[in-house]
Amino acid sequence: MKKAHLISIGNEIINGDILDSNSSWLSRQLASCGIETIGIQAVGDDIRLIYNALENAAKQADIILTTGGLGPTDDDITRDAIADFANVKLVLKQDIVDKIQSFFRARNIQMPQKNTVQAMIPQGLDVLDNNAGTAPGFAGIVDKIFVASMPGVPTEMKLMFTEAILPKLKDFSDGKILKTQKIKIFGLGESTVAEMLGDLMNRTRNPLINCTVSGGIITLHIISKADNTKAADEQIKADTQLLQNILGDWIYAVGDYELADVVGNLLLKKNKTVCLAESCTGGLVSKMITDSSGASQYFKCGWVCYCNDVKADFLGVDKNLIEKYGAVSAQVAEKMAIGALEKSKTDYAISITGIAGPTGGTEQKPIGLVYICVADKKEAVVEEYKFSRRTREFVRLRAAQSALNQLRMKLLVD
Amino acid sequence: MKKAHLISIGNEIINGDILDSNSSWLSRQLASCGIETIGIQAVGDDIRLIYNALENAAKQADIILTTGGLGPTDDDITRDAIADFANVKLVLKQDIVDKIQSFFRARNIQMPQKNTVQAMIPQGLDVLDNNAGTAPGFAGIVDKIFVASMPGVPTEMKLMFTEAILPKLKDFSDGKILKTQKIKIFGLGESTVAEMLGDLMNRTRNPLINCTVSGGIITLHIISKADNTKAADEQIKADTQLLQNILGDWIYAVGDYELADVVGNLLLKKNKTVCLAESCTGGLVSKMITDSSGASQYFKCGWVCYCNDVKADFLGVDKNLIEKYGAVSAQVAEKMAIGALEKSKTDYAISITGIAGPTGGTEQKPIGLVYICVADKKEAVVEEYKFSRRTREFVRLRAAQSALNQLRMKLLVD
Repeated sequence: MKKAHLISIGNEIINGDILDSNSSWLSRQLASCGIETIGIQAVGDDIRLIYNALENAAKQADIILTTGGLGPTDDDITRDAIADFANVKLVLKQDIVDKIQSFFRARNIQMPQKNTVQAMIPQGLDVLDNNAGTAPGFAGIVDKIFVASMPGVPTEMKLMFTEAILPKLKDFSDGKILKTQKIKIFGLGESTVAEMLGDLMNRTRNPLINCTVSGGIITLHIISKADNTKAADEQIKADTQLLQNILGDWIYAVGDYELADVVGNLLLKKNKTVCLAESCTGGLVSKMITDSSGASQYFKCGWVCYCNDVKADFLGVDKNLIEKYGAVSAQVAEKMAIGALEKSKTDYAISITGIAGPTGGTEQKPIGLVYICVADKKEAVVEEYKFSRRTREFVRLRAAQSALNQLRMKLLVD
Repeated sequence: MKKAHLISIGNEIINGDILDSNSSWLSRQLASCGIETIGIQAVGDDIRLIYNALENAAKQADIILTTGGLGPTDDDITRDAIADFANVKLVLKQDIVDKIQSFFRARNIQMPQKNTVQAMIPQGLDVLDNNAGTAPGFAGIVDKIFVASMPGVPTEMKLMFTEAILPKLKDFSDGKILKTQKIKIFGLGESTVAEMLGDLMNRTRNPLINCTVSGGIITLHIISKADNTKAADEQIKADTQLLQNILGDWIYAVGDYELADVVGNLLLKKNKTVCLAESCTGGLVSKMITDSSGASQYFKCGWVCYCNDVKADFLGVDKNLIEKYGAVSAQVAEKMAIGALEKSKTDYAISITGIAGPTGGTEQKPIGLVYICVADKKEAVVEEYKFSRRTREFVRLRAAQSALNQLRMKLLVD
């Protein structure tokens, strides 16, 4: 199996200002085409240190990928370090100057002179187009090692990796096939999932089943190592079925899908529409739903009701009811959803009211208390949640996810 | 100034399952006591690769800190690698065996035999107590380099670093203090900022001025190296003034603040309120504003109008106007803001309508075209934006940021 080494370049990583999410993304992509990442280095914008990192990587790896340091400013020196490492000169590529110029021209901006440096490419390496920014990348073979440099901006890097590098790497990787499948779960804890799976999570099993948790979503990774694609696919299919039998509807997606998209697809399939009435989530659920471009087919409108007047004036929630039970109550959640359903004429309405914190909690109504109602013409069902890790971001995200999941569960039986 | 190199050990980092947040935390801690991090490496649980990472680090650093690989299982081999690197044997420390045993006894669990290995320490190194788990760390001087190994669990690592390593490092570090200040900019490109700053971004200047870009926000980092805190503070103050003179209102914050919070603080200071009428951003601006817990003091409500009916029914936008100019037009943006202002009785209203893509663009109205209106009782001013990097996420985020910035600019002169 080919071995890769990743180098992230930039003082902002070394200083601890940002986390190196590029490397972990790249590592997962490489694994999916059968390349093992054996090392990750981060270095600042210092040519001697970058050079040293390249040399260190070259001792072990068949593939070296760098990210960052391709910008137009003086601290962007990856191209110089790669040229030194490959023992070649930098050459000015006029066609890239033209391309960068037209990038700025399309935006009615004159190209800053500094950007010319981005057209300097280590001699003998291939230029990789940047279809999302000005910094081109480059790739080629240096001393039998495949070396590629990409920009550090994640959107630019991901596009360039997928469009320009992945096809080259697929030719370059060997023998065994690694295939992965993600199974996504919401509503269970990691240790509960581990207990339900038991021996399936054994480290020596093939396929290997790994478990990661991020933002309340548990992802099981089925990682199959096989001699060919067909064998790997069969292993993955069998394990997917196995996990579905064990975990049932806790699995919201087979594949790397967001909860909002799964809900969107269910609405689409049933030709239904939804509206939102959000209080503590402040627009987050609407935002999550409209992250997908097709959302206008099932999402009509949302209200962010951040004060009681608005809940009354816009959604027709009785002010006496709010006074009696409080804005954070099952009663108000119910009326918000029913009001939203009537005003919007959608098939479903979701309402969310809760205490996100860090202030505003009381003994009776602590931070983390959230009421979510899903209503249709027949019924309005309110669920009470008590989120225990009481940071604002945590409560808002879990509330938003729970709202989506509550509608998902309803759509599964409707 | 002393130089540190950090090594994170564990397959989960190399595989991209988790982000290496330990290293960035350590880097910031080291900076605060005048130690510069010059390299970060991540390696899997492989003794040869760990050894190689140690050797690589030793070439450059005065201090090497490792995290991870101190657990009781077979894949935890940091202690073996450090012993090899220091060219010493591992010795069993009976007092640590006793300590681990009592850790388990306190939890009414019999110590698994495997845990004994955690009492094996490279000869000659000092044991570092773990007051949050079972894995002790160790530290000592190896070939004039200060080497310390800590567990990978962040809570255990942070406690051990603070209690056991930081005091040792303070003795070990020499004089110089590192202090940093962030200056945040929205609306300019990185290369334009670099041209405006010119020689200020020279790599040998002190304070060093670094530039990073993330999600459209440019952050300038003033990094001052000085003999004492007072001198560093003075350098930072002078450079902050210098940058403010050059960049003016393009700087939206001195310090690490979000655009939404800066706008919120301006609204608070002026005792004003705002409402939102969002189309293409789908709730994102409301979400960004309500990320802060104090937002209810200045944010009253938001509408997410994801279809034309809603723009007409809820905000009173004339359907003929929508038909004539299209939902994405300056005219509709203006009426959305005016309608929202009237319905909500806030001091300001922001409306956003645009084409976020990836579908829905035409030649006349391409993806990335966004109209944003900021209205108060006196006027409604619409700005047209043409966002060029046309991914949905990009257009939505830039539109949301531009909306906030448009209100910020108005609040600065109001």
